[in-house]
Amino acid sequence: MDHRILDVISSPADLKLLDNEELSILAREIREEIVAVTSETGGHVGSSLGAVEIILAVHSMLDCPRDRFIFDVGHQAYAHKLVTGRLDEFKSLRTYGGLSGFPKPGESPYDVHPSGHASDSLSVALGLAKARDLSGGDNRVVALIGDAALSGGMAFEALNHIGQAQTPMVVILNDNEMSISRNVGALMKHLGYMRASSQYRQTRDSVQERLESSGPFGEALANFGRNMKESMKQFVLPRTMIFEQLGILCTAPIDGHDIGALKETLAMVLATDAPVLMHVVTKKGAGYDPAVRNPEKFHGIAPYDVATGAVRKKPAAAPSYTSVFGEALAAEARKDERIVAITAAMKDGTGLAGFAEEFPSRFVDSGIAEEHAVGLASGLAIGGKKPVVAIYSTFLQRAVDQLIINNALPNLDVVFAIDRAGVVGEDGPTHHGMFDLAYTRMVPHMRVLAPSNEAELVHALHTALALGGPFAIRYPRGAAEGVPLPEEPQVLEVGKAQVVREGADVAILAFGRMVGRALGAAELLAARGIDARVVDMRWAKPLDSDAIERAAQTRLVVTVEGGIVSGGAGEGVLGELARLGRAVPALTLGIPDTFVPQGKADLLLADLGLDPEGIARSIEERMQ
Amino acid sequence: MDHRILDVISSPADLKLLDNEELSILAREIREEIVAVTSETGGHVGSSLGAVEIILAVHSMLDCPRDRFIFDVGHQAYAHKLVTGRLDEFKSLRTYGGLSGFPKPGESPYDVHPSGHASDSLSVALGLAKARDLSGGDNRVVALIGDAALSGGMAFEALNHIGQAQTPMVVILNDNEMSISRNVGALMKHLGYMRASSQYRQTRDSVQERLESSGPFGEALANFGRNMKESMKQFVLPRTMIFEQLGILCTAPIDGHDIGALKETLAMVLATDAPVLMHVVTKKGAGYDPAVRNPEKFHGIAPYDVATGAVRKKPAAAPSYTSVFGEALAAEARKDERIVAITAAMKDGTGLAGFAEEFPSRFVDSGIAEEHAVGLASGLAIGGKKPVVAIYSTFLQRAVDQLIINNALPNLDVVFAIDRAGVVGEDGPTHHGMFDLAYTRMVPHMRVLAPSNEAELVHALHTALALGGPFAIRYPRGAAEGVPLPEEPQVLEVGKAQVVREGADVAILAFGRMVGRALGAAELLAARGIDARVVDMRWAKPLDSDAIERAAQTRLVVTVEGGIVSGGAGEGVLGELARLGRAVPALTLGIPDTFVPQGKADLLLADLGLDPEGIARSIEERMQ
Repeated sequence: MDHRILDVISSPADLKLLDNEELSILAREIREEIVAVTSETGGHVGSSLGAVEIILAVHSMLDCPRDRFIFDVGHQAYAHKLVTGRLDEFKSLRTYGGLSGFPKPGESPYDVHPSGHASDSLSVALGLAKARDLSGGDNRVVALIGDAALSGGMAFEALNHIGQAQTPMVVILNDNEMSISRNVGALMKHLGYMRASSQYRQTRDSVQERLESSGPFGEALANFGRNMKESMKQFVLPRTMIFEQLGILCTAPIDGHDIGALKETLAMVLATDAPVLMHVVTKKGAGYDPAVRNPEKFHGIAPYDVATGAVRKKPAAAPSYTSVFGEALAAEARKDERIVAITAAMKDGTGLAGFAEEFPSRFVDSGIAEEHAVGLASGLAIGGKKPVVAIYSTFLQRAVDQLIINNALPNLDVVFAIDRAGVVGEDGPTHHGMFDLAYTRMVPHMRVLAPSNEAELVHALHTALALGGPFAIRYPRGAAEGVPLPEEPQVLEVGKAQVVREGADVAILAFGRMVGRALGAAELLAARGIDARVVDMRWAKPLDSDAIERAAQTRLVVTVEGGIVSGGAGEGVLGELARLGRAVPALTLGIPDTFVPQGKADLLLADLGLDPEGIARSIEERMQ
Repeated sequence: MDHRILDVISSPADLKLLDNEELSILAREIREEIVAVTSETGGHVGSSLGAVEIILAVHSMLDCPRDRFIFDVGHQAYAHKLVTGRLDEFKSLRTYGGLSGFPKPGESPYDVHPSGHASDSLSVALGLAKARDLSGGDNRVVALIGDAALSGGMAFEALNHIGQAQTPMVVILNDNEMSISRNVGALMKHLGYMRASSQYRQTRDSVQERLESSGPFGEALANFGRNMKESMKQFVLPRTMIFEQLGILCTAPIDGHDIGALKETLAMVLATDAPVLMHVVTKKGAGYDPAVRNPEKFHGIAPYDVATGAVRKKPAAAPSYTSVFGEALAAEARKDERIVAITAAMKDGTGLAGFAEEFPSRFVDSGIAEEHAVGLASGLAIGGKKPVVAIYSTFLQRAVDQLIINNALPNLDVVFAIDRAGVVGEDGPTHHGMFDLAYTRMVPHMRVLAPSNEAELVHALHTALALGGPFAIRYPRGAAEGVPLPEEPQVLEVGKAQVVREGADVAILAFGRMVGRALGAAELLAARGIDARVVDMRWAKPLDSDAIERAAQTRLVVTVEGGIVSGGAGEGVLGELARLGRAVPALTLGIPDTFVPQGKADLLLADLGLDPEGIARSIEERMQ
């Protein structure tokens, strides 16, 4: 690692001094750095390795942060971090207090917006272009979006507007021929057609030739000059392509690992006074064989062995909630053929791979399209099926309206399996599942279950499917509690909590995974002379009125949940106390009115006072 | 109106007995009925008049409710109501206890899903088609969607999936060449191109000829028979059209007021074993001159005079909140050129027509595309502008995630002007703004203002723009309170409430428009010997801790809000009481855990116990 070019790159301006050969060497160094660091920290390896040349080419052509380089999802951005003055901190990637795994405005002036949710970059980019136009500015705006994110409706809405607005901006489509899970959607096929079309190859070849014959880079630019738009007409595709029909010029696909080609094409599209989509084909994991061979595994990966790519597994204490859910759903599906599973591009992430293999016709992957996934569930339910929609808590935020209008209002038999509820860890603020208790609780007809362990999750799923109506079941990321799974799932009594520890001084009403932590807190409190009851509330809605009434007979009612306090289940308990006419001291613990940073989940929970010691301390302080 | 065909139509099956000429007569009768009734009730006149022939053609070809006819938005559906056994009730349209202005499953087995929000029909339809396939059924699925709704990302997500799934279903695109406000988006231009293309005309003409020469309707069908897909290849458009590229066969545009053409085309597309988009061109308001001449006015209209189309205006007691907002924003924009206004296809509905005229370059209409509108605001704010996003409460549900991730997380200077907050009246459950206090309150960094009258709204807007950061301002539909507007808007102190009536027995903490009703309740209570304080809370977030502390010194703390109680501002007050260590009796009034039906807003509020008498009664009961 001596004499690396990477070590002397302090800002993107330095890239302008490098020729293409040097940039290619730098790309290799960056890949080595990404693999070295992520093998320790884990991370989004495949997409970041695939986008190295694109990022180098863009930063060597733009003047950021004056120009704007906007990432979609943002887990392609590691190379961007490395060339924008963050090499020294890169080892802290995804750790508590360290660099974010995504672009993050507070971290660097080069990070335009908090990426993390797919398909939003084009809207943000058009907003920046419009702001520039209003100010009479001339800075450039470039958005980088993967093919998978294009299936999100928000991206289409933006393309539709970009095509109409016709202000200069560049959309780089990083077409790596895969989404997180398997490719889905007709648009993907269309992209494949674009790649394969011989017309495109010819267009591309003729452009290459023209560029080559026009001498060095600067001359080529000069030749195109102000009449770029005319030249583009030969360069870009005929109006048979979907983007062209939306009024967006579209380049022929180019090799996204060819720095020279990228820079030449960028020079042209940046000089165009209209929106252009630059179609770039890359390989996910490029330059690191294990990631190329296993693109799904290396999408987001835990720490791994650099030589083999094998994940360095800790002996798992328990199966994950996700896998318990997937297996429980498959077991239910064996007994009830009406069950259909829906995922939005997260087949593996939601534990549905086994289900998909066993029941291929009853498994639907909508692609990154949460709104449609939830609307589709509505249609399936109206058609007599029992759809189970498995989406991460943070991504289901995209479909709050469809959950309300399409499913809850007509009181349909739809189960929302909300994975990654609560603090998720290293992916940070865009990925924590902070709001699901609030946005499900507020909805009439919805019933909301928060299982406290994997056995409870199995019962909860069975209950939702047995009773019908709109249900939300929320459970956290990662290993479950290690309790034995039930032989036969039971139907839980609606709105009935379970006392898991008796106690007379204080009643801790806990939701989901917080039950275990509340029990830990009760032990600590016992040692301090406070006798705490712990109740596994099971249901965030309807709440157990009797359990709350009984809790009101202690000296303090405490609620503990893993989500935001504002609008959360704890406030629901306060509401129930008020309805019961019980004026008693109460304490609502959960995530306060703030976004939560990245870091190991246990560490974050401790910071939030949601570990046993924190819970015990809050209660003790309050009782004094 | 004697001897109407309409009077003998008791179900869609009766339509099959009519020939095309009789169906055309029926169409005229239906138009007369729609105009006669809506001139009394108000309603969505233009789109319903435009879709009459489409609906008659579909129902004469399908066997509903076994076959499924799904409406998008659903305000096109009046003719559907009239031919599905609801003629006698039609006079009750949009009234309390009467027929819904939208398809509503509880009202009729012919109404598939609760339409009301745009762009969801294709997802629901695909879900129904998928359910049919899983059950081995053969029922037909037809969705009817307007051109404006196609700009919504959810519709694109569904098209993308439909193109991949390739199961038979029909999407009728009702292209009436306008959205609610002005047409926006590149897709709209593309539709225009499709309409204008001579190739399409030729295709259409040749199909017409072929159909005509193939004799009566039955023969034409027989000729096409099982080889329909082959025939379709000549019939449908070449793969240069956007829908074709998504894998969806697409017909040439046909005249949507020609019953014969509609039925013939439907026969073909229904016999196709693949998804087909049937492109139908209609005129909004067709058959009723005032509606044709003023399509925007007749989109959704109050009771009007049949002869002239003039709205029967009651003398307005006060300007609407909407118009006060629009004028206040224009006044702010005159002083601060950074202000940009954004609407999602509701320029008039959000009071921005004047702003758009005065500041055309600083006005953005995203079309029906709330996700993009909110993402665009983020980009504008990052670019140094001050975007104000005016969206109805119920439609902003579509962009909850973008509000959180793209605007609140990076703490941007974005104002959400949430119109139609609370009960809206005749449009019913899909349109009430029940959830905005819950879904804004839960979000860190957000500040939420609920002005109690139009002067407060002016101050609230000024405050949000002056202070910066993410702000939500929510205000109701309809006439404001009639108070004088301020000469100069003031910056309100953050989190500071205002006592509007002193009282020692009970403290009513009211939000927004409920302040006036709370004052009315206080007067009633005074007469009953209860001395009630009334506090205009102004801020739903942050709450005024001092005002709450003072309220806790009375015998009962009452909160009153116009939205859902679960997760609403009242529960926030309970949380603050708990934090203050105040265990006091409390009562949270608002919309309980139920969807609210249609009807006049005052009547609905009275039903909910949110009129002065209801509030007073609840307090009195509680204090006994």
